[in-house]
Amino acid sequence: MSTAEELGERKIINLILNCLDQMPNMPVPFGDDVSAVDIGNGKLAVIKTDMLVGKTDVPPHMTLRQAARKAVVMNISDLATKGVQPLALLASIGVPRNLTKKDIQQIGSGLNEGAREYNAYLLGGDTNEASDLVISCTAFGICEKRHLMRRSGAKPGDIVAVTGLFGKTSSGLKILLEHLFAPPKLRTKLVRAVYMPQARLKEGLALAQTRAATSSIDSSDGLAWSLHEISRASNVGFLIDNLPAAQEAKQFAEIHHLDLIELCMYGGEEYELLVTIKSRLWEKAKKAVEHVGASLIKIGVVTKEKKLLLKTEGKTVLIDARGWEHFKTV
Amino acid sequence: MSTAEELGERKIINLILNCLDQMPNMPVPFGDDVSAVDIGNGKLAVIKTDMLVGKTDVPPHMTLRQAARKAVVMNISDLATKGVQPLALLASIGVPRNLTKKDIQQIGSGLNEGAREYNAYLLGGDTNEASDLVISCTAFGICEKRHLMRRSGAKPGDIVAVTGLFGKTSSGLKILLEHLFAPPKLRTKLVRAVYMPQARLKEGLALAQTRAATSSIDSSDGLAWSLHEISRASNVGFLIDNLPAAQEAKQFAEIHHLDLIELCMYGGEEYELLVTIKSRLWEKAKKAVEHVGASLIKIGVVTKEKKLLLKTEGKTVLIDARGWEHFKTV
Repeated sequence: MSTAEELGERKIINLILNCLDQMPNMPVPFGDDVSAVDIGNGKLAVIKTDMLVGKTDVPPHMTLRQAARKAVVMNISDLATKGVQPLALLASIGVPRNLTKKDIQQIGSGLNEGAREYNAYLLGGDTNEASDLVISCTAFGICEKRHLMRRSGAKPGDIVAVTGLFGKTSSGLKILLEHLFAPPKLRTKLVRAVYMPQARLKEGLALAQTRAATSSIDSSDGLAWSLHEISRASNVGFLIDNLPAAQEAKQFAEIHHLDLIELCMYGGEEYELLVTIKSRLWEKAKKAVEHVGASLIKIGVVTKEKKLLLKTEGKTVLIDARGWEHFKTV
Repeated sequence: MSTAEELGERKIINLILNCLDQMPNMPVPFGDDVSAVDIGNGKLAVIKTDMLVGKTDVPPHMTLRQAARKAVVMNISDLATKGVQPLALLASIGVPRNLTKKDIQQIGSGLNEGAREYNAYLLGGDTNEASDLVISCTAFGICEKRHLMRRSGAKPGDIVAVTGLFGKTSSGLKILLEHLFAPPKLRTKLVRAVYMPQARLKEGLALAQTRAATSSIDSSDGLAWSLHEISRASNVGFLIDNLPAAQEAKQFAEIHHLDLIELCMYGGEEYELLVTIKSRLWEKAKKAVEHVGASLIKIGVVTKEKKLLLKTEGKTVLIDARGWEHFKTV
């Protein structure tokens, strides 16, 4: 019989979903970035839980403070994609027996840092003995039902946009995991992208207010994978004609003769928002995001045909449905 | 420097709490059974997260279905103590690589079973690779602010009561962990208490409606420990004169010449509610719980002097501040 290792994360999730009775009138379907409950008066309670595991989610030399902060930021990012301000965070922590007092304080500081950066508070949680470090965070917020940005509303003709450029974390991970070289200044920037991920909360909140976005997701499993998720949920295709490559990723790709498309599309652990915007509201959406000191970058259009295409340097290639996935031995 | 093992769970929690900025006007203080956010209109959003770890929380021969159900019930119990109906549950699961497809379906079924027993739904979650089985659940609900039962309101003269009798799980754990004998019929009952814990939700909801309870906690760390928690939070003492011992625990204690007080007071992993009730509302509270087909058993009174006493068989003994605690090597 297949083991978890052979099944892979997504099949495991489907096996579990098949066991569940579905709540009637779920405001957000299974498989979206968050779960929600209708609490009346046009409002939704939005919750998300995501677990950081030392062995798979903490790259070499990341401090415990950074790891704990990341566990919080991962969850805030999911609320950000839906346009929801986190009000409260909880953390359930599995603590290996050999952690020191100082280690535990580092975890506490990291949790607090992650929450306070996004104007939220850690309200509680629990601790347990565990063989490996486990930090399972829960983020909670409330939003207007009509403001929630799902994965499922993208329509042909909508503009595809992202909140930042890609390829820095995948380059950083190559430095940390495969020991690739980068000049000190570049190295610092790339490694920082891995250690100190940023959730695009102000961007998500600004976009939700405009009601210009027809779908939204973060790119934590890679840009390609996120495009495929929106494609599945919204039953549309994409033509991406502007590869959103960070300058630093370009530099790093050049040094090592790496494929820039690979670095930008299939990396994962990036937390930029990928959104689709009603074309007539594009200017409004762009201005709203710029108004909060951030940027919205057009990278393509939504198409009717359920095909995912990337046009770059004169060639058009298919965007593979692959990305960051636990368990699966690729 | 001290390690997690030497520090013990409660010192670890305090180390983390000391790192946190406190949300202004927290409706429920750190250290209570749940966390809460004021969402206006006299209502609170209530959330709780608690993690089940295979190595420490899953006794021998417990099935994965039972373990997953327990992970849900643990969290529902905390909402039950506060008088809050769970609306939604999330589960973040750390899956060891060698689990089979059937194992994973067992986990899914157990999660669903736990939620549906209490009229709630599992709405989402995530899965990760982990060395040991980890199921971190989050329970969410909404309640009237004035109905929430905290740990901190017990007053001298209040009646102390529990929702059931004690000692079955500690006896069951002795059978499972220390291989003590029990006749088949008795064994089945005691082991069942361990494998299929019940959250006292209908009791908690009924009590909250009466507004007769001045404090409430569950007994998952043992009855003695729960009494000490209420004592700390409410700044009161207790005189317990009716040891709430289950018939099955008495039988088991007799067979093995075990101390019944030990089995009932210091067991843990029991989910009965321990509440204090305004004496003039005792009949109202008792009837409300009986009305939902359950029972409320008077075990003593709240005292002004911060001393915890147990009067049984003519002797009066001090109730120790010890209970179920992870990490600490006793």
